[in-house]
Amino acid sequence: MSNVRVIIWGLGAMGIGMGRMIAAKQGIEIVGAIDTHPEKAQKQLSQVLGVAAPDVEVTSDPTKVIKPGAADVVLVCTGSFTREVYPQLELVAKAGINCITIAEEVAYPAAQEPALAQSLHKMYDEAGVTLLGTGINPGFVLDALIIALSGVCTHVESIRAVRVNDLAPFGPTVMRTQGVGTTPAEFHSGIESGKIVGHVGFPESMSLIATALGIKLDRIEQVKEPIISDTYRETPHVKVAPGMVAGCKHIAYGYSGGKLVLTLEHPQQIRPEAESVNTGDYIYITGVPNISMAIAPEIPGGIGTIAMTVNMIPAVINASPGLVTMADLPIPRALMGDISALIKR
Amino acid sequence: MSNVRVIIWGLGAMGIGMGRMIAAKQGIEIVGAIDTHPEKAQKQLSQVLGVAAPDVEVTSDPTKVIKPGAADVVLVCTGSFTREVYPQLELVAKAGINCITIAEEVAYPAAQEPALAQSLHKMYDEAGVTLLGTGINPGFVLDALIIALSGVCTHVESIRAVRVNDLAPFGPTVMRTQGVGTTPAEFHSGIESGKIVGHVGFPESMSLIATALGIKLDRIEQVKEPIISDTYRETPHVKVAPGMVAGCKHIAYGYSGGKLVLTLEHPQQIRPEAESVNTGDYIYITGVPNISMAIAPEIPGGIGTIAMTVNMIPAVINASPGLVTMADLPIPRALMGDISALIKR
Repeated sequence: MSNVRVIIWGLGAMGIGMGRMIAAKQGIEIVGAIDTHPEKAQKQLSQVLGVAAPDVEVTSDPTKVIKPGAADVVLVCTGSFTREVYPQLELVAKAGINCITIAEEVAYPAAQEPALAQSLHKMYDEAGVTLLGTGINPGFVLDALIIALSGVCTHVESIRAVRVNDLAPFGPTVMRTQGVGTTPAEFHSGIESGKIVGHVGFPESMSLIATALGIKLDRIEQVKEPIISDTYRETPHVKVAPGMVAGCKHIAYGYSGGKLVLTLEHPQQIRPEAESVNTGDYIYITGVPNISMAIAPEIPGGIGTIAMTVNMIPAVINASPGLVTMADLPIPRALMGDISALIKR
Repeated sequence: MSNVRVIIWGLGAMGIGMGRMIAAKQGIEIVGAIDTHPEKAQKQLSQVLGVAAPDVEVTSDPTKVIKPGAADVVLVCTGSFTREVYPQLELVAKAGINCITIAEEVAYPAAQEPALAQSLHKMYDEAGVTLLGTGINPGFVLDALIIALSGVCTHVESIRAVRVNDLAPFGPTVMRTQGVGTTPAEFHSGIESGKIVGHVGFPESMSLIATALGIKLDRIEQVKEPIISDTYRETPHVKVAPGMVAGCKHIAYGYSGGKLVLTLEHPQQIRPEAESVNTGDYIYITGVPNISMAIAPEIPGGIGTIAMTVNMIPAVINASPGLVTMADLPIPRALMGDISALIKR
């Protein structure tokens, strides 16, 4: 069978990781790559990836590669927000190609952008191809995995899940958007101005869970608090003195019928071990039966997002047309064999 | 929308649990029930379930209720082996009704009964309906959940998973099939004669995982060893003196290219806490990244099987025709809303 053909749009850390992963797999190949960064555009893909790769030149002009019949799927790794990636998703749909994006909001775009979600569904449906938003979170830890675990319950009363991670591997952008290295006063004004955003994806994960389980959420509340350090912590990109902010504790609460039914917590900070905080992913379902799950240390965000995106490619190509979510598709899985053999033709 | 209509075939502990679960849900109803036990046949369903239920008389004659158009799905809870439930699954297919069974081998019948699996697929496909084998294990803990977790991996080297449970809640049949209360000599001769079976479902779980991940298994080895008690343990059904057998440690090994890639362990015993053994479900993936998951205590087997079976009903009704596995269907989920609204018509 012929190889699954992939175009990667956005060669940041995630896009590059996907490129390397695909280069190491059977039955799949990269046929196009798009990035506007002057250090990447016009280079050979293998040079940008740092591994052997097909003879593909990275282009800064999407219309050069996103063309009808050019690929089986485009991986869009350029932004976080539906509004931001919408024109790119539209270009892919117009070319009649399936699409997976790691834009957090597109994991369930109807949560915050119902009109855009509807038009995305319409354009992909009409083009006969499929659009999925995924990643580690949203996409798995704080939604799909919770949904899957709830399958062993005859009744669910409430759910609480916590993802405790370490931001130390990340660069200056993440430090800024999480408020790492600010004073508490700077943190609060950063939250107000929108400069500090915390985690992107809570309304999407909440809506994914609620829709899958058939729970009607009346409202979602979000709280973002500074994690004030008692100790000195540093990374190559930031220094945090005691009394300064080591990260953002972002919590979302979902209410149904006035009752708290969903609590998702994502305290993100650098070097949590400095204060004996262990990283991990924790899911607690109160119901029949109660379920208490721990993955420790936590599933690493970067590799997890790269893996989930590439691993969902066959499911997306095989799916019914339109905008879909992780709750609509078969359970994710690692792809260790010939990927071309998984495509229903 | 009209209610989802269910027939339950087999009113043992599992069938009764499903009946009670369905009776408490919206948009779904029991329209038929089959059991040959003289204490159950000809009784009113509500009497057998011990809860309010539709006005349905339990029948001992399957052909009275398994008729074209009589239901949307039949839940077959009568046996463990493909060969054993095959005639029942055939009757359901001939009536053109979807079917879910908790017969362990039907979770992946091709593992041990490839010819029967093929003819089951053919008859369900031709009838335009779907057949799924599920339950807690096989069906979830030692297969579907492992598959789902592997989705965060770019590469999987090997997988080991352990389900440690307590057999104390179970009755005489389980004590006998697990060898609880035997001497070590009796245990070994029971294994040889097939009287002591250990866990049913390892080849099925292994095949489910291997097929989903695209790993070719050359061979599966199974080892069943007595768990010899150092302490006195008892339940209402059995007494185990020190030196006697408290349960069966059943392990399956899956090899690919001569290399051990899958290890599934299921030590089942009464009162493991007597020797400080904690129950739990544990999954360890060696790969990129490594994943270490714990659910402690373990997901209870009875409720888990009941829940998973009922919770998969909408996915099975909506699925493409034929024999399917848990790896083919959307991720499981608890059903807390109107179940009839989930059916694609």
